[in-house]
Amino acid sequence: MDCLFCKIIRGEIPSRKVYEDKDSVAFLDINPANPGHTLVMPKKHAENIFDADDELLGRVIVAAKVISKKIKESLNADGINVIQNNGRHAGQIVNHIHFHIIPRFANDTVIISYPKIKMEDKDFEEIQKKLAESERKVQKNWEMDLM
Amino acid sequence: MDCLFCKIIRGEIPSRKVYEDKDSVAFLDINPANPGHTLVMPKKHAENIFDADDELLGRVIVAAKVISKKIKESLNADGINVIQNNGRHAGQIVNHIHFHIIPRFANDTVIISYPKIKMEDKDFEEIQKKLAESERKVQKNWEMDLM
Repeated sequence: MDCLFCKIIRGEIPSRKVYEDKDSVAFLDINPANPGHTLVMPKKHAENIFDADDELLGRVIVAAKVISKKIKESLNADGINVIQNNGRHAGQIVNHIHFHIIPRFANDTVIISYPKIKMEDKDFEEIQKKLAESERKVQKNWEMDLM
Repeated sequence: MDCLFCKIIRGEIPSRKVYEDKDSVAFLDINPANPGHTLVMPKKHAENIFDADDELLGRVIVAAKVISKKIKESLNADGINVIQNNGRHAGQIVNHIHFHIIPRFANDTVIISYPKIKMEDKDFEEIQKKLAESERKVQKNWEMDLM
Protein backbone atom coordinates (compact mmCIF):
# COMPACT_ATOMS: atom_id res chain seq x y z
CA MET A 1 0.00 0.00 0.00
CA ASP A 2 1.26 3.47 -0.82
CA CYS A 3 1.01 4.75 2.76
CA LEU A 4 3.98 6.65 4.22
CA PHE A 5 3.48 5.23 7.71
CA CYS A 6 3.04 1.66 6.42
CA LYS A 7 6.38 2.08 4.62
CA ILE A 8 7.99 3.30 7.85
CA ILE A 9 6.43 0.39 9.78
CA ARG A 10 7.76 -2.09 7.19
CA GLY A 11 11.21 -0.48 7.54
CA GLU A 12 11.30 0.74 3.93
CA ILE A 13 11.71 4.32 5.15
CA PRO A 14 13.88 5.01 8.20
CA SER A 15 12.40 6.50 11.38
CA ARG A 16 13.47 7.36 14.90
CA LYS A 17 11.59 4.63 16.71
CA VAL A 18 11.01 5.10 20.45
CA TYR A 19 8.49 2.33 21.19
CA GLU A 20 7.19 -0.89 19.73
CA ASP A 21 4.89 -3.70 20.82
CA LYS A 22 2.98 -6.41 18.97
CA ASP A 23 0.29 -4.06 17.65
CA SER A 24 1.67 -0.54 17.92
CA VAL A 25 4.72 1.48 17.04
CA ALA A 26 5.90 5.00 17.89
CA PHE A 27 8.55 7.23 16.37
CA LEU A 28 9.65 10.84 16.76
CA ASP A 29 7.87 13.40 14.55
CA ILE A 30 10.49 14.88 12.19
CA ASN A 31 8.72 18.26 12.37
CA PRO A 32 8.23 18.45 16.12
CA ALA A 33 6.15 20.98 18.03
CA ASN A 34 8.52 20.39 20.95
CA PRO A 35 11.48 18.05 21.56
CA GLY A 36 10.06 14.56 22.16
CA HIS A 37 6.95 15.04 19.95
CA THR A 38 6.07 11.43 19.10
CA LEU A 39 3.57 9.72 16.79
CA VAL A 40 2.02 6.45 17.98
CA MET A 41 -0.09 4.26 15.70
CA PRO A 42 -1.31 0.73 15.03
CA LYS A 43 0.91 -1.32 12.71
CA LYS A 44 -2.16 -2.47 10.85
CA HIS A 45 -3.41 0.17 8.45
CA ALA A 46 -6.58 2.08 9.30
CA GLU A 47 -7.27 5.50 7.86
CA ASN A 48 -8.76 7.24 10.87
CA ILE A 49 -10.72 6.71 14.09
CA PHE A 50 -13.90 5.96 12.12
CA ASP A 51 -12.54 2.81 10.49
CA ALA A 52 -10.12 1.66 13.21
CA ASP A 53 -10.91 -1.67 14.84
CA ASP A 54 -12.13 -1.28 18.46
CA GLU A 55 -9.67 -3.68 20.02
CA LEU A 56 -6.70 -2.25 18.15
CA LEU A 57 -7.79 1.27 19.11
CA GLY A 58 -7.77 0.20 22.76
CA ARG A 59 -4.26 -1.17 22.45
CA VAL A 60 -2.96 1.96 20.73
CA ILE A 61 -4.33 4.29 23.43
CA VAL A 62 -2.63 2.15 26.08
CA ALA A 63 0.63 2.42 24.09
CA ALA A 64 0.00 6.20 23.98
CA LYS A 65 -0.29 6.16 27.77
CA VAL A 66 2.99 4.25 28.20
CA ILE A 67 4.79 6.62 25.84
CA SER A 68 3.25 9.72 27.43
CA LYS A 69 4.53 8.60 30.83
CA LYS A 70 7.99 7.89 29.44
CA ILE A 71 8.17 11.27 27.69
CA LYS A 72 6.89 13.20 30.69
CA GLU A 73 9.39 11.58 33.04
CA SER A 74 12.50 11.44 30.89
CA LEU A 75 12.09 14.91 29.35
CA ASN A 76 10.62 16.59 32.46
CA ALA A 77 7.62 17.84 30.50
CA ASP A 78 5.13 20.07 32.33
CA GLY A 79 2.22 18.42 30.49
CA ILE A 80 1.26 16.27 27.51
CA ASN A 81 -1.25 16.79 24.70
CA VAL A 82 -2.58 13.66 23.04
CA ILE A 83 -4.03 14.71 19.67
CA GLN A 84 -5.60 12.53 17.00
CA ASN A 85 -6.75 14.29 13.80
CA ASN A 86 -9.31 12.87 11.37
CA GLY A 87 -9.58 14.35 7.91
CA ARG A 88 -7.72 17.04 6.03
CA HIS A 89 -9.83 19.80 7.58
CA ALA A 90 -8.82 18.55 11.02
CA GLY A 91 -5.12 18.71 10.08
CA GLN A 92 -4.61 15.03 9.24
CA ILE A 93 -1.81 14.84 6.67
CA VAL A 94 -0.99 11.11 6.58
CA ASN A 95 -4.07 8.90 6.22
CA HIS A 96 -2.92 6.22 8.66
CA ILE A 97 -4.47 6.76 12.10
CA HIS A 98 -1.95 8.19 14.58
CA PHE A 99 -1.90 9.93 17.94
CA HIS A 100 0.42 12.89 18.44
CA ILE A 101 2.06 12.83 21.86
CA ILE A 102 3.22 16.42 22.39
CA PRO A 103 5.23 17.19 25.51
CA ARG A 104 4.40 20.68 26.78
CA PHE A 105 6.61 23.12 28.59
CA ALA A 106 5.73 26.39 30.30
CA ASN A 107 6.02 29.20 27.73
CA ASP A 108 6.47 26.93 24.73
CA THR A 109 5.19 27.89 21.25
CA VAL A 110 2.37 25.38 20.79
CA ILE A 111 -1.07 26.92 20.22
CA ILE A 112 -4.31 25.00 20.76
CA SER A 113 -6.89 27.73 20.77
CA TYR A 114 -10.34 28.77 19.65
CA PRO A 115 -12.68 31.64 20.30
CA LYS A 116 -15.64 30.25 22.23
CA ILE A 117 -18.52 30.29 19.77
CA LYS A 118 -21.85 31.75 20.84
CA MET A 119 -24.48 29.07 21.43
CA GLU A 120 -28.00 29.63 22.77
CA ASP A 121 -29.94 26.97 24.69
CA LYS A 122 -31.95 26.19 21.54
CA ASP A 123 -28.70 25.62 19.57
CA PHE A 124 -27.49 23.08 22.13
CA GLU A 125 -30.91 21.40 22.06
CA GLU A 126 -30.82 21.24 18.27
CA ILE A 127 -27.44 19.47 18.40
CA GLN A 128 -28.66 17.00 21.04
CA LYS A 129 -31.71 16.29 18.88
CA LYS A 130 -29.61 15.64 15.77
CA LEU A 131 -27.28 13.31 17.68
CA ALA A 132 -30.22 11.43 19.20
CA GLU A 133 -31.77 11.07 15.73
CA SER A 134 -28.56 9.64 14.31
CA GLU A 135 -28.65 7.08 17.15
CA ARG A 136 -32.17 6.03 16.25
CA LYS A 137 -31.13 5.76 12.59
CA VAL A 138 -28.21 3.49 13.51
CA GLN A 139 -30.51 1.40 15.70
CA LYS A 140 -33.07 1.16 12.88
CA ASN A 141 -30.45 0.06 10.33
CA TRP A 142 -29.24 -2.51 12.78
CA GLU A 143 -32.75 -3.86 13.32
CA MET A 144 -33.21 -4.04 9.56
CA ASP A 145 -29.97 -6.02 9.29
CA LEU A 146 -31.42 -8.56 11.68
CA MET A 147 -34.55 -9.08 9.59
CA MET B 1 -14.94 14.05 45.65
CA ASP B 2 -14.86 17.72 44.74
CA CYS B 3 -14.49 17.09 41.00
CA LEU B 4 -16.72 19.05 38.59
CA PHE B 5 -17.04 16.14 36.16
CA CYS B 6 -17.77 13.62 38.94
CA LYS B 7 -20.58 15.93 40.07
CA ILE B 8 -21.95 16.06 36.51
CA ILE B 9 -21.66 12.27 36.24
CA ARG B 10 -23.55 11.85 39.53
CA GLY B 11 -26.23 14.21 38.19
CA GLU B 12 -25.59 16.86 40.86
CA ILE B 13 -24.83 19.41 38.14
CA PRO B 14 -26.89 19.37 34.93
CA SER B 15 -25.25 18.65 31.58
CA ARG B 16 -26.25 18.17 27.95
CA LYS B 17 -25.61 14.44 27.73
CA VAL B 18 -25.22 12.97 24.25
CA TYR B 19 -23.90 9.47 25.03
CA GLU B 20 -23.69 7.01 27.90
CA ASP B 21 -22.62 3.41 28.36
CA LYS B 22 -21.62 1.34 31.39
CA ASP B 23 -18.17 2.94 31.74
CA SER B 24 -18.26 6.19 29.80
CA VAL B 25 -20.33 9.32 29.43
CA ALA B 26 -20.27 12.24 27.00
CA PHE B 27 -21.84 15.69 27.11
CA LEU B 28 -21.63 18.86 25.07
CA ASP B 29 -18.89 21.34 26.04
CA ILE B 30 -20.61 24.52 27.26
CA ASN B 31 -17.78 26.60 25.74
CA PRO B 32 -17.59 24.91 22.36
CA ALA B 33 -14.92 25.41 19.70
CA ASN B 34 -17.60 24.46 17.15
CA PRO B 35 -21.21 23.29 17.42
CA GLY B 36 -21.14 19.66 18.55
CA HIS B 37 -17.92 19.97 20.60
CA THR B 38 -18.27 17.06 23.03
CA LEU B 39 -16.36 15.80 26.07
CA VAL B 40 -16.14 12.05 26.60
CA MET B 41 -14.74 10.53 29.79
CA PRO B 42 -14.78 7.48 32.07
CA LYS B 43 -17.37 7.62 34.85
CA LYS B 44 -14.74 6.41 37.30
CA HIS B 45 -12.46 9.24 38.34
CA ALA B 46 -8.91 9.31 37.01
CA GLU B 47 -6.94 12.52 36.85
CA ASN B 48 -5.19 12.10 33.50
CA ILE B 49 -3.83 9.55 31.03
CA PHE B 50 -0.97 8.69 33.39
CA ASP B 51 -3.19 7.31 36.14
CA ALA B 52 -6.09 5.98 34.02
CA ASP B 53 -6.64 2.22 34.12
CA ASP B 54 -5.68 0.52 30.82
CA GLU B 55 -8.96 -1.30 30.30
CA LEU B 56 -11.07 1.75 31.08
CA LEU B 57 -8.89 3.85 28.74
CA GLY B 58 -9.59 1.33 25.97
CA ARG B 59 -13.32 1.57 26.56
CA VAL B 60 -13.30 5.38 26.58
CA ILE B 61 -11.44 5.61 23.25
CA VAL B 62 -14.00 3.25 21.70
CA ALA B 63 -16.77 5.50 23.07
CA ALA B 64 -14.86 8.44 21.53
CA LYS B 65 -14.92 6.62 18.20
CA VAL B 66 -18.69 6.00 18.39
CA ILE B 67 -19.35 9.65 19.28
CA SER B 68 -16.95 10.94 16.60
CA LYS B 69 -18.83 8.96 13.96
CA LYS B 70 -22.20 10.19 15.22
CA ILE B 71 -21.03 13.82 15.25
CA LYS B 72 -19.42 13.60 11.83
CA GLU B 73 -22.51 12.11 10.26
CA SER B 74 -25.27 14.04 11.96
CA LEU B 75 -23.55 17.44 11.82
CA ASN B 76 -21.85 16.92 8.43
CA ALA B 77 -18.45 17.78 9.88
CA ASP B 78 -15.50 17.92 7.48
CA GLY B 79 -13.21 16.37 10.09
CA ILE B 80 -12.82 15.61 13.78
CA ASN B 81 -10.06 16.41 16.28
CA VAL B 82 -9.75 14.12 19.27
CA ILE B 83 -7.74 15.97 21.93
CA GLN B 84 -6.81 14.82 25.41
CA ASN B 85 -4.86 17.30 27.57
CA ASN B 86 -2.77 16.33 30.58
CA GLY B 87 -1.69 18.97 33.04
CA ARG B 88 -2.32 22.70 33.33
CA HIS B 89 0.49 23.54 30.91
CA ALA B 90 -1.20 21.33 28.31
CA GLY B 91 -4.51 23.17 28.76
CA GLN B 92 -6.20 20.69 31.12
CA ILE B 93 -8.66 22.66 33.26
CA VAL B 94 -10.72 19.92 34.93
CA ASN B 95 -8.60 17.18 36.49
CA HIS B 96 -10.81 14.27 35.41
CA ILE B 97 -9.48 12.66 32.25
CA HIS B 98 -11.54 13.61 29.18
CA PHE B 99 -11.26 13.57 25.42
CA HIS B 100 -12.44 16.58 23.45
CA ILE B 101 -14.27 15.57 20.29
CA ILE B 102 -14.16 18.69 18.12
CA PRO B 103 -16.02 18.64 14.81
CA ARG B 104 -14.14 20.65 12.19
CA PHE B 105 -15.50 22.62 9.30
CA ALA B 106 -13.69 24.24 6.38
CA ASN B 107 -12.75 27.81 7.39
CA ASP B 108 -13.70 27.46 11.05
CA THR B 109 -11.88 29.34 13.82
CA VAL B 110 -10.08 26.49 15.59
CA ILE B 111 -6.30 26.82 15.73
CA ILE B 112 -4.00 23.86 16.40
CA SER B 113 -0.64 25.19 15.37
CA TYR B 114 3.04 25.36 16.19
CA PRO B 115 6.18 26.61 14.53
CA LYS B 116 8.30 23.56 13.68
CA ILE B 117 11.19 23.70 16.11
CA LYS B 118 14.72 23.26 14.80
CA MET B 119 16.18 19.86 15.68
CA GLU B 120 19.56 18.49 14.55
CA ASP B 121 20.28 14.76 14.20
CA LYS B 122 22.14 14.82 17.51
CA ASP B 123 19.08 16.38 19.24
CA PHE B 124 16.84 13.57 18.00
CA GLU B 125 19.45 11.01 19.10
CA GLU B 126 19.63 12.60 22.53
CA ILE B 127 15.84 12.28 22.92
CA GLN B 128 15.90 8.64 21.78
CA LYS B 129 18.68 7.94 24.28
CA LYS B 130 16.77 9.55 27.16
CA LEU B 131 13.60 7.58 26.30
CA ALA B 132 15.55 4.31 26.03
CA GLU B 133 17.18 5.01 29.40
CA SER B 134 13.80 5.59 31.04
CA GLU B 135 12.74 2.19 29.66
CA ARG B 136 15.76 0.48 31.21
CA LYS B 137 15.02 2.23 34.50
CA VAL B 138 11.41 0.96 34.47
CA GLN B 139 12.63 -2.54 33.62
CA LYS B 140 15.21 -2.41 36.43
CA ASN B 141 12.61 -1.28 39.01
CA TRP B 142 10.37 -4.07 37.86
CA GLU B 143 13.13 -6.64 38.27
CA MET B 144 13.85 -5.29 41.75
CA ASP B 145 10.17 -5.67 42.66
CA LEU B 146 10.42 -9.35 41.78
CA MET B 147 13.38 -9.94 44.09
